[in-house]
Amino acid sequence: MDVALHFKVQDLNARYVHAIDEDRLEQWPEFFAEDGRYRITTAENVERGLPLSLMSATSRAMMRDRVNSLRNANVYESQRYRHAVGTPLIEPGSDGVVRAVTNFLVARIMHTGETTLFATGRYEDRIAVAADTPHFLEKTVILDSRQIDTLLAIPL
Amino acid sequence: MDVALHFKVQDLNARYVHAIDEDRLEQWPEFFAEDGRYRITTAENVERGLPLSLMSATSRAMMRDRVNSLRNANVYESQRYRHAVGTPLIEPGSDGVVRAVTNFLVARIMHTGETTLFATGRYEDRIAVAADTPHFLEKTVILDSRQIDTLLAIPL
Amino acid sequence: MDVALHFKVQDLNARYVHAIDEDRLEQWPEFFAEDGRYRITTAENVERGLPLSLMSATSRAMMRDRVNSLRNANVYESQRYRHAVGTPLIEPGSDGVVRAVTNFLVARIMHTGETTLFATGRYEDRIAVAADTPHFLEKTVILDSRQIDTLLAIPL
Repeated sequence: MDVALHFKVQDLNARYVHAIDEDRLEQWPEFFAEDGRYRITTAENVERGLPLSLMSATSRAMMRDRVNSLRNANVYESQRYRHAVGTPLIEPGSDGVVRAVTNFLVARIMHTGETTLFATGRYEDRIAVAADTPHFLEKTVILDSRQIDTLLAIPL
Repeated sequence: MDVALHFKVQDLNARYVHAIDEDRLEQWPEFFAEDGRYRITTAENVERGLPLSLMSATSRAMMRDRVNSLRNANVYESQRYRHAVGTPLIEPGSDGVVRAVTNFLVARIMHTGETTLFATGRYEDRIAVAADTPHFLEKTVILDSRQIDTLLAIPL
Repeated sequence: MDVALHFKVQDLNARYVHAIDEDRLEQWPEFFAEDGRYRITTAENVERGLPLSLMSATSRAMMRDRVNSLRNANVYESQRYRHAVGTPLIEPGSDGVVRAVTNFLVARIMHTGETTLFATGRYEDRIAVAADTPHFLEKTVILDSRQIDTLLAIPL
């Protein structure tokens, strides 16, 4: 069990969720490799082997587009998220890449102040930990609930 | 302060809650000693010194029975849990056993997708940390709320 | 990245929230320096540069007064909190002082058993980590929601 390795992953997770929770969305793509993959799906889709995604990006460029449209279109109601992220379960791999599975709970705070438990689930990540700045090669957000909020707009 | 020791406890906690949250209930008894004890009670019962339990098992065999009846009787509504678990407070003991107290919040996600904050409280655990695989000798789940959901069925 | 340093901060945070969650409020001032500062505000106030506070104390003595009036006046409904606290983001400073930013979610459990997601936000702390017992020089609780519960009485 490698404490330093776990620590690196926890630190990456903490910086990732803080960037989102503090509405620094422009930083969000920077947590990924240039050709990094990001996808939101549901536990039900995963169990049924369905390749459906609620949100999907296969490069930083696509993620930047996503953020730009969020900022410009302004179609989503003013809201912020607050994440609680668990201790990651880590499987060391080869070539400085690890797999990590991490629980999350996300609260959503609307402009009115109304706070709800918005989303729960797990992250399944592939992380380049040997890089100068550890980052995600792939991040799959697997939601527990299949009840999709049509406001789902900000990355999780 | 022993970083490696804390790390072992956090890792055990993370594996424990993932097994439950991912519905791998058959693994649940394996986190305990053969004569391990598991019990769910409320903060009110503890404060009043009442030895009441909402769920109780005094061996792995009893836990396996519990899981079997959950799987077969199928009396509980289809639901899943998602835990957020805090940093454990640890008191080192003798003979490779530690006491740990850990905050938890549990969300429950019903088959319909409805998500609620289901249970909060603390774990009070005695853990064999010197074993090849650290495991619980005793785990007491102390719920903050005395309002008992009659659906309480899955271990917490 | 200093694992031992992060660990110290996480341990301080864990002890801090356990004292509150277990209603050991008399210990709350002891987590601060004698002239420690504590303040609750909202993200909206911070973004607008407004120096408004929902609760404020500039010494341990003021915090003790606060706890005394909570205990004596008994104006708040019987309730308890349960915190989920994230991995801190730490900026080492000079003279054994660090800055830490940490996510939190707090559940409130009323005497009736009713449990709600009460408050979310971040702690912005200055911590004396080189002291024999690490403690807060300053703790700012920044709430995400601007909808203030008038029952806000227990420190967060």
